[in-house]
Amino acid sequence: METTGLVSFGRYTCSHLYFLLLIVLPLGQHTVEGVWPLPQIFTSSIERYPLNPQAFYFGYGRQSAAQFGCSVLDAAFIRYYSLIFPDYTGNGVLHNNLSVSAGKASLNAETVWGAVRGLETFSQLVYQDDFGSYFVNQTEIDDFPRFPFRGILLDTSRHFIPVHAILKTLDAMAYSKFNVFHWHIVDDPSFPYQSQTFPDLSRKGAFHPMTHIYTQSDVRRVISHARLRGIRVLPEFDSPGHTKSWGKGQSDLLTPCYSGSTPSGAFGPVNPALPSTYQFMATLLKEVSSVFPDSYIHLGGDEVNFSCWKSNPDVRAFMQKMGFGVDFTKLEAFYMENIVNITTFLNKTAIVWQDVFDYHELRSSPSVVEVWKDGCYLCEVRRVANVGLRVILASPWYLDQPGPTHNWARFYTPLNFSGTAEQKKLVIGGEVCMWGEYVDATNLTPRLWPRASAAAERLWSDEKQTSSVDKAFPRLQDFRCKLVRRGIRAEPLYVGHCKHEYQGV
Amino acid sequence: METTGLVSFGRYTCSHLYFLLLIVLPLGQHTVEGVWPLPQIFTSSIERYPLNPQAFYFGYGRQSAAQFGCSVLDAAFIRYYSLIFPDYTGNGVLHNNLSVSAGKASLNAETVWGAVRGLETFSQLVYQDDFGSYFVNQTEIDDFPRFPFRGILLDTSRHFIPVHAILKTLDAMAYSKFNVFHWHIVDDPSFPYQSQTFPDLSRKGAFHPMTHIYTQSDVRRVISHARLRGIRVLPEFDSPGHTKSWGKGQSDLLTPCYSGSTPSGAFGPVNPALPSTYQFMATLLKEVSSVFPDSYIHLGGDEVNFSCWKSNPDVRAFMQKMGFGVDFTKLEAFYMENIVNITTFLNKTAIVWQDVFDYHELRSSPSVVEVWKDGCYLCEVRRVANVGLRVILASPWYLDQPGPTHNWARFYTPLNFSGTAEQKKLVIGGEVCMWGEYVDATNLTPRLWPRASAAAERLWSDEKQTSSVDKAFPRLQDFRCKLVRRGIRAEPLYVGHCKHEYQGV
Repeated sequence: METTGLVSFGRYTCSHLYFLLLIVLPLGQHTVEGVWPLPQIFTSSIERYPLNPQAFYFGYGRQSAAQFGCSVLDAAFIRYYSLIFPDYTGNGVLHNNLSVSAGKASLNAETVWGAVRGLETFSQLVYQDDFGSYFVNQTEIDDFPRFPFRGILLDTSRHFIPVHAILKTLDAMAYSKFNVFHWHIVDDPSFPYQSQTFPDLSRKGAFHPMTHIYTQSDVRRVISHARLRGIRVLPEFDSPGHTKSWGKGQSDLLTPCYSGSTPSGAFGPVNPALPSTYQFMATLLKEVSSVFPDSYIHLGGDEVNFSCWKSNPDVRAFMQKMGFGVDFTKLEAFYMENIVNITTFLNKTAIVWQDVFDYHELRSSPSVVEVWKDGCYLCEVRRVANVGLRVILASPWYLDQPGPTHNWARFYTPLNFSGTAEQKKLVIGGEVCMWGEYVDATNLTPRLWPRASAAAERLWSDEKQTSSVDKAFPRLQDFRCKLVRRGIRAEPLYVGHCKHEYQGV
Repeated sequence: METTGLVSFGRYTCSHLYFLLLIVLPLGQHTVEGVWPLPQIFTSSIERYPLNPQAFYFGYGRQSAAQFGCSVLDAAFIRYYSLIFPDYTGNGVLHNNLSVSAGKASLNAETVWGAVRGLETFSQLVYQDDFGSYFVNQTEIDDFPRFPFRGILLDTSRHFIPVHAILKTLDAMAYSKFNVFHWHIVDDPSFPYQSQTFPDLSRKGAFHPMTHIYTQSDVRRVISHARLRGIRVLPEFDSPGHTKSWGKGQSDLLTPCYSGSTPSGAFGPVNPALPSTYQFMATLLKEVSSVFPDSYIHLGGDEVNFSCWKSNPDVRAFMQKMGFGVDFTKLEAFYMENIVNITTFLNKTAIVWQDVFDYHELRSSPSVVEVWKDGCYLCEVRRVANVGLRVILASPWYLDQPGPTHNWARFYTPLNFSGTAEQKKLVIGGEVCMWGEYVDATNLTPRLWPRASAAAERLWSDEKQTSSVDKAFPRLQDFRCKLVRRGIRAEPLYVGHCKHEYQGV
């Protein structure tokens, strides 16, 4: 069972409680292979059952609230049929009126998303013998995620990532039970989001106005692909810093920097002293809120450099007028509060980077703080939880960073978060960050997988059962081969081989 | 011009001196884009000429010794036509009887391989404007490689690399003017080479006897694909260490290790005390010599652990008999000398890793020593050159090693090799090593490219003209986009974009 709550999909929810049936026949013996991430409660025997692709079908239980017509599960049945029987070229799943009364397996879940996760688990239990026959061992699993928020951030501004590569990443995310795609869609280098209300933003701010943009149709495709896999799409429109590309298509948005008493020609962060800034942000965020249905929106707020604000006489005058003195963190707080208020008004829950929490007290606080800085990040988690705010942890999972890329165990470190039950409840999850300085579609997949899967197990599974790197290693090797078999270019962990090596080029 | 000598292809050579013609018409202006690796002498003007795919053709000059029927150039014409006109779907190159008497470009080379390099250079000079039209600027180039040996090592034992991934690597190698594929084909973990004389070696020593092997046909395909691109295939059968997988299919080859007075069940390096060892090696190397036509053969000889030899009473008795005392380097030298003599008899030039040179004086010395260890590798180069042996340098180009993978400039460091002209001449080149602990077909390409291209420029170009990382950076970025356009999954160097992003998944 996967609890909903924070990870519910709002308007997408189908309905609750159902069974899935499938045809199995008991037979010989085989060691069961692992499931990644490790289920909470898992027992299996060496008794195995053959699966016949031609007789196998998924079906809704009679008592299930979900029935044929639930688009998410109907699609998942088709998808997982192919994943379970990679060699079978027929489409047995569509002929589900067979009356073979043999073995059955059942999957009970409280939500449609829990059922999707259960299908993933089941698909990982099925294996082939040397003759290509399919088997599943007798298994009992009771499962739920440790954290409701299990995200991966992709940065599509420092390099443009074509839609097909994003979709492929969503596929792989579902295999590791990630449920949030944090789309850091724009930043300094480029603005690839094609806005309906401000088309000049991508026309002038993208790397190329036609080939390096995400159209509305692209965005819908990503959201729909993600939704069918139980993945939320969390858009980030980071401001007031990280906005250089915005200035190209929206004049008077960025702060003109001054060199002495004259503008230098350079621009700094968003100009917080102009009313037009807030009108623009309100209009843009209104569009974003309607295009991205998720209840969360990420507002960024990281790494604001004050030097340009300091140089600008209009900004300084505004500071005086507002009584901020020379404390530019107050100006930043003023800006962020206004932006958070806009999203509150739009009925969205705001997420911000930890900088916003670190540097100033906000009167109207954002709901969720994302901790990303190095050092004692668990101290920071505690500080945020102490004031009753929710926390997402990203610090240990910067997979884009230099370092021995093959040391997957770095990303498997237990969290050991001590705190009251109340505080722990505020830690809603974690996120793998794949910043884009050195990453695009050429190397994204092997850099993400299977290392992100190590983080996925940390976010899903019981920490006590998954504290040993040595025990995890063969399981992760096995899971990595499953990813490769499914066409995911997941890199090897160490010397060895997969039964089915990657066949692409 | 590319000198032949050490890089000649022996029986493959076509013939010497020819021209290539192509249709060009002078027109407007455009900044010429770069060629990677940088040619020795390069002048170009802003005068540009349009290229019409329908009128363009390659042809042999009337005075050329090579004419239609030279398989290497006939194939290169077809290949480079597609590379030069990636958007054009016709096959104009085959209709080369057009009588358009317009501009011509000529390419003179002393060897067929030099002409292949020249075609690569020419293909990099052609660019498209925003409307898709093709242009080339007026350019004069006189070019030759700094070193005759410019290699890339792939390790197909620690992970099996499917043939299609090897072929793709050969394509990319040709784009950077590499000319040696060092095939480290077998090692401890697996023996994927399917031997005609000893089929049990792969049947029992490969990861899988059917799916994880290189058949004779696979090997021929690799050699043929490489040859057409001016790349030699240098096979390595590393012994006496790194041979664990050999023992599975060839009993009595490896040394039984002893625990006290009884065999422990473990095996060590090849057993140098048995005559059967040398019979086996002679038979295997005879086969290898005939399967791989290159004049070089790599015999390995690195990292021999003496502990197993020391434990074995028969080996110790052999030491006594031979008068080696307790100096096991003498035993190793004895073994390597025998193996080198076998290859000399087979008319091949032996290459060994530096260990063989470091640890003992050989009476019959191998011809070429490959320097691979860290530290003052140029000191080692000098030591080897001082005794008149040829040297290949690999130390600075271990691209598989952990570290900031994106720091391409690490592999661009000038060599600054000081020595007499005689000594310098003995340094025949260098090699990029891609060991296989953490590498297979899923991540090979982005890990190799474009970082190996940095090494390629060091090995091809004039060091004085290519000592600046800052000047090289935009050129390498441009070249990396050319690789991506050609379907090579070369990873990005830093923030930015290519006009044509990678379209695969």
